[in-house]
Amino acid sequence: MIIYDDQSFPYVSDAFPDLSNMGSYSPSHVYRAKDVSAVVEYARLRGIRVLPEFDTPGHTESWGPGQPGLLTPCYKGSSPDGTFGPIDPSKDNNYDFLQTLFTEVTGRFPDHYIHLGGDEVNFSCWKSNPNITDFMAKINITGDYSKLEQVYITKLVDIVSNLPTKNGYLVWQEVFDNGVEIANDTIVHVWKYENVPVAWKHELNQVTSAGYKTVLSSCWYLNYISYGVDWHKYYECDPQDFHGTDSQKQLVMGGETCMWGEYVDRTNLISRTWPRASVVAEKLWSSSEHTNSTSEATPRLEEHRCRLLARGYDVEPLWPSFCSADVY
Amino acid sequence: MIIYDDQSFPYVSDAFPDLSNMGSYSPSHVYRAKDVSAVVEYARLRGIRVLPEFDTPGHTESWGPGQPGLLTPCYKGSSPDGTFGPIDPSKDNNYDFLQTLFTEVTGRFPDHYIHLGGDEVNFSCWKSNPNITDFMAKINITGDYSKLEQVYITKLVDIVSNLPTKNGYLVWQEVFDNGVEIANDTIVHVWKYENVPVAWKHELNQVTSAGYKTVLSSCWYLNYISYGVDWHKYYECDPQDFHGTDSQKQLVMGGETCMWGEYVDRTNLISRTWPRASVVAEKLWSSSEHTNSTSEATPRLEEHRCRLLARGYDVEPLWPSFCSADVY
Repeated sequence: MIIYDDQSFPYVSDAFPDLSNMGSYSPSHVYRAKDVSAVVEYARLRGIRVLPEFDTPGHTESWGPGQPGLLTPCYKGSSPDGTFGPIDPSKDNNYDFLQTLFTEVTGRFPDHYIHLGGDEVNFSCWKSNPNITDFMAKINITGDYSKLEQVYITKLVDIVSNLPTKNGYLVWQEVFDNGVEIANDTIVHVWKYENVPVAWKHELNQVTSAGYKTVLSSCWYLNYISYGVDWHKYYECDPQDFHGTDSQKQLVMGGETCMWGEYVDRTNLISRTWPRASVVAEKLWSSSEHTNSTSEATPRLEEHRCRLLARGYDVEPLWPSFCSADVY
Repeated sequence: MIIYDDQSFPYVSDAFPDLSNMGSYSPSHVYRAKDVSAVVEYARLRGIRVLPEFDTPGHTESWGPGQPGLLTPCYKGSSPDGTFGPIDPSKDNNYDFLQTLFTEVTGRFPDHYIHLGGDEVNFSCWKSNPNITDFMAKINITGDYSKLEQVYITKLVDIVSNLPTKNGYLVWQEVFDNGVEIANDTIVHVWKYENVPVAWKHELNQVTSAGYKTVLSSCWYLNYISYGVDWHKYYECDPQDFHGTDSQKQLVMGGETCMWGEYVDRTNLISRTWPRASVVAEKLWSSSEHTNSTSEATPRLEEHRCRLLARGYDVEPLWPSFCSADVY
């Protein structure tokens, strides 16, 4: 789960309460420690693991008000323009902050893995800031902002690797694409090129030929809604279907379907996620010989939708149909 | 409201109970007289009129089991193939049936108007049936299936016009497009060419220059979902924005937004219809000088969404945001 984004920081930290005090939508729109425990336990009883993502150094606009000095001030000419970019990688204080925060977070989420993000880092603010420029000159990476990202990610990974909980971690594919040197046991999360299978297949080849484990999401962005029957494409996506050796294919741990929240909240989360996400579940958890026909899957999916409705989940229809148990 | 379609006939008729007994999804998935009354009264108290659509001669597959002889048997070569097409316009019995049914329906729905449909009439089944061929020869319209549609629609309109309730009526644009002669007071419902404004503008011109009143839906098909902010296009659609004289423009009665049920039922009806339908309401009910800016409409729409949530309607978000009153 992505527990925050640019718009809001709802995670209530004991160590840094101002992050949510000043960064959440409102004091009521937060996840307190007991809320996190409730979600984790609810999931555990259903055989589901909850991995938090604390995405840095980008996607952190909402962290700014509660932790002055954390974000990079963007400049217009020779003065700050009042806006902020990614976490400032030049300041030692910020790594102390991250060490304390991630110690708390990994204590609160029991899973072995944590997702460190690293996607969509916008270099333009870093480029505008003279302190960043000076810092880069000092460490001999002038002009190479991917290297600057690498400095940050390397230190973050070092912090997370040495936590008492010894977490494993995932990063989005940009960390790999930007040439950041990452530890061998990093899991690279492939997510781009939704409509260009040849491109994500190439990415899987590149990531696994470099020896990294990987998880695929590119073909399972459920939030990209469209009119009509859209589940066939989810069912026909196979994370093993790329050019690579057997040992490369063994590095593909599986897939993850995504439901992003730009246009989704409690009002439409269940109906929009299900039953379409069930398609991905069957594809990933059943052997390929039983999951190669959408026409054979159709009656199973219809039946499963009715089962979900009967259990009280308001999941959307796949086509004009009805469920016997769904009566008023 | 469309009260039935090819898939199911849920309207419970006193005169023809077999229509729903044999044509509904199940005996529980029906609208009885008291259900219809409840819907009409619920709407009336909110200033909303409920117009039923009983779409004929197409879209009637579900009528077949409960009313043998009503639909046209489709032929393969010289024998019926077991499938059925539109209502059989060659049989006098069928008009008696329609007279009885529409007398009942217009008694049950108090609104002055009824929608008679007439869209998407598939001629291929009529073309295959030798009795239809004979009938057309007898009345000298051999080969002209639009004329056959006209025979049907003319008789239907004659029936409806002479009901005790003296209803007014709407038809979908195909009835006009196919050259069917229709009475002067018919309202032609323009719905095609969603993504081709030049085409529906041309249609509005044609319909009004022929002297018919019209209602526009082309630009307001809310069921055609897509990812992202889609309400701007609804807000920017203006049913007066076509080439025509002032008197033509006065024939445009307004617009209707549509939410079709192929992928929508009780699980996602509210969240998918609202607040996007509010955009159409403001556009059609407010003067054009106040509805020409999506940026000015945005805060009103955000506030209105929160108002709907506060009143218990789970309407979907328009963008990452929150409502103060929406707290758990």
